[in-house]
Amino acid sequence: MDAITLNTAIGLLAAACTTGSFVPQLLKIHRQGGRDLSYAMLVLYLLGVALWFTYGLRIKAAEVILANIIAGLLIVTALVMKRRTEP
Amino acid sequence: MDAITLNTAIGLLAAACTTGSFVPQLLKIHRQGGRDLSYAMLVLYLLGVALWFTYGLRIKAAEVILANIIAGLLIVTALVMKRRTEP
Repeated sequence: MDAITLNTAIGLLAAACTTGSFVPQLLKIHRQGGRDLSYAMLVLYLLGVALWFTYGLRIKAAEVILANIIAGLLIVTALVMKRRTEP
Repeated sequence: MDAITLNTAIGLLAAACTTGSFVPQLLKIHRQGGRDLSYAMLVLYLLGVALWFTYGLRIKAAEVILANIIAGLLIVTALVMKRRTEP
């Protein structure tokens, strides 16, 4: 495996972890609500994801682009679910 | 500003947002606990951050390396704070 392929593999695994980590969080919000989640955290994270997506486009790193599209969708879902469970 | 400098600037801004987003979350855990935060999310995210750090080292991207060092410290702090507020 050459260096670029290995970098991409590490990036994909990294992306699977950081992006996939939102899945158990969404399940937890579904079960018990998300009152302890910070709106500021979610909104700032979403802004960061949009910037990482731009960065990924510029350095042409497919793993960065893909991870941030999925992360963005999951964070928007978390925001909507949290909003719905708020009193 | 040449392309590499602009990419670094976008990466640093992205890193400031995604990493900095944990700060309001830590404040919220301090105020009201972190029962609604998922341990699986935090641990998986930490693993992902370790992998992104490795990726940053390999592609020699200072903004990726730095962001993930700080993110790792903040997530460990969140884990400790959540643990302390659990019954």
